[in-house]
Amino acid sequence: MNIDMIRAAAKRLNGHARRTPLLTSPFLDDIAGRRVLVKPECLQHTGSFKFRGGWSAVSALDPETRKRGVIAYSSGNHAQGVALAAARHGIPSVIVMPTDAPRLKIENTRALGAEVVLYDRAGGESREDVGNAIAAGRDLTLIRPYDEPQVIAGQGTTGLEIAAQAHAEGVEAGDVLVCCGGGGLTSGIALALEAEAPGLRARPCEPEGFDDTARSLISGRIQTNSRQSGSLCDAIITPAPGEITFPIMARLCGPGLVVTEEQALRAMALAFKRLKIVVEPGGAVALAAALFHGQDIQGEAVVAVCTGGNVDADVFAAAVTRYD
Amino acid sequence: MNIDMIRAAAKRLNGHARRTPLLTSPFLDDIAGRRVLVKPECLQHTGSFKFRGGWSAVSALDPETRKRGVIAYSSGNHAQGVALAAARHGIPSVIVMPTDAPRLKIENTRALGAEVVLYDRAGGESREDVGNAIAAGRDLTLIRPYDEPQVIAGQGTTGLEIAAQAHAEGVEAGDVLVCCGGGGLTSGIALALEAEAPGLRARPCEPEGFDDTARSLISGRIQTNSRQSGSLCDAIITPAPGEITFPIMARLCGPGLVVTEEQALRAMALAFKRLKIVVEPGGAVALAAALFHGQDIQGEAVVAVCTGGNVDADVFAAAVTRYD
Repeated sequence: MNIDMIRAAAKRLNGHARRTPLLTSPFLDDIAGRRVLVKPECLQHTGSFKFRGGWSAVSALDPETRKRGVIAYSSGNHAQGVALAAARHGIPSVIVMPTDAPRLKIENTRALGAEVVLYDRAGGESREDVGNAIAAGRDLTLIRPYDEPQVIAGQGTTGLEIAAQAHAEGVEAGDVLVCCGGGGLTSGIALALEAEAPGLRARPCEPEGFDDTARSLISGRIQTNSRQSGSLCDAIITPAPGEITFPIMARLCGPGLVVTEEQALRAMALAFKRLKIVVEPGGAVALAAALFHGQDIQGEAVVAVCTGGNVDADVFAAAVTRYD
Repeated sequence: MNIDMIRAAAKRLNGHARRTPLLTSPFLDDIAGRRVLVKPECLQHTGSFKFRGGWSAVSALDPETRKRGVIAYSSGNHAQGVALAAARHGIPSVIVMPTDAPRLKIENTRALGAEVVLYDRAGGESREDVGNAIAAGRDLTLIRPYDEPQVIAGQGTTGLEIAAQAHAEGVEAGDVLVCCGGGGLTSGIALALEAEAPGLRARPCEPEGFDDTARSLISGRIQTNSRQSGSLCDAIITPAPGEITFPIMARLCGPGLVVTEEQALRAMALAFKRLKIVVEPGGAVALAAALFHGQDIQGEAVVAVCTGGNVDADVFAAAVTRYD
């Protein structure tokens, strides 16, 4: 896993993934006490950065392998990213999703052309068993959500864009806050920044109670979460950082930041009000850290990646009216 | 008023206004029956395209005139655009706003550094009387919201971007739908398209009951609205197309499109769900026309400008939950 793979992924994504802008608001700067530059990956195709990794992985397959199709396990955003990438390559995709994933994510994945197979997470069904039963005999290629080099390479293209866009804004040093599940995006961005913007440092951001990566970075060894569901921040809840992603984060990232669910909802409301973007709870964790944990952040400017916007209307409506 | 003024404004705006992307979703294409390319000016500074015109007008003033300050009459988006443009030029601004303007717009205008003066629209106060009383002796320059060449030039930079971005998407012909109040944006875009993308045609979009421009284009003479308030689409409610903007629209624009308030709210909900952007009712009128008036539109692709996103949380929440 290295920067050359990210640069190669950027070439494959060119013209297919969206180059999202950097957004700013003087109101957010006031709250944070420094300049806040927001990378709105909610505006990416399928509403999250996951399309980058999905496209990267599918486009990297050799054509014979690719045409048999791909399979993915995902609570939502990775599912949509892989589904659209597969559909645009004209190949089949099977997505195994938990029954309690947000309704919007299940519907979208199906509408994007994937064969969606649901499993009962709470009832103890194993997604691997369900997936294996479906995939048997079809020789589908598994696209892992984060612990997969070509996926990390795709997510890392976000970091190449941040490096160039921060430079254009005159920002050469500071923290780049990233909502972190398994660490695919965080490690990819960290590698991109190491090569292209060494004054910028990636830092994983997580919700309280699901701070496996922050604890892993402190201990130097992979730590797990005791719970694996029950957070509004469903998009970034994973059991632990990955075997590939963790060593990269341990080498390159600053300390993790942990925010409350309420802070994430407040950040969603502020992104609505000040940036006019729709961010899901898990996608607002980094912005929440930028706005409400300023004492733990370095530099005169901070970059926050809003990683996704696939939130059900009732959750979003409750957040923006409650914290208006 | 000509294309050279728009090109000159683009140079003055470079590095100050945001170049908004073009957004797409296969789900919107399905609804519309053709490709839908959305220009999200809600992501512009201050949450609407009006910053372009504000910056253009303020930056075009000679320095001696400019430093005395500017004054504007506006129900909201023009107010914020002028206020921020003035603040960034380091000059004072006075904004005269109706008491029934959305709370968020009044608050923002004040927070952006403007001196806000409220007048009672329903009670019969004249904004000109109120404004004149404030401006007396200070020799402030009035920045009109649409019937002002340098404002039209600034708004027209949106059209330069649309021309380039549509070309990059392989779209050379079709309708460009624009939410239309006094016609500053519509006429500016029309002039830009005439010069840079002659296969694209600007068309004004208005809410039912406030279709002064559509009727004016039919009759060939400026028509007025019988009502001047009472629409959720407050951002684009004006008495009539302008003396400068109307002849441009009459020469260059296709027929106007008129949508219901409910269609605008549905378009807001779809922009939330499919594009992850926040659009205000008046800013969603063009997207509503693209999605729900397909039979009146020409071409295999349509461009819709979402002109602003300054909507109160309760209005937005009601729209996205009602039309989920």
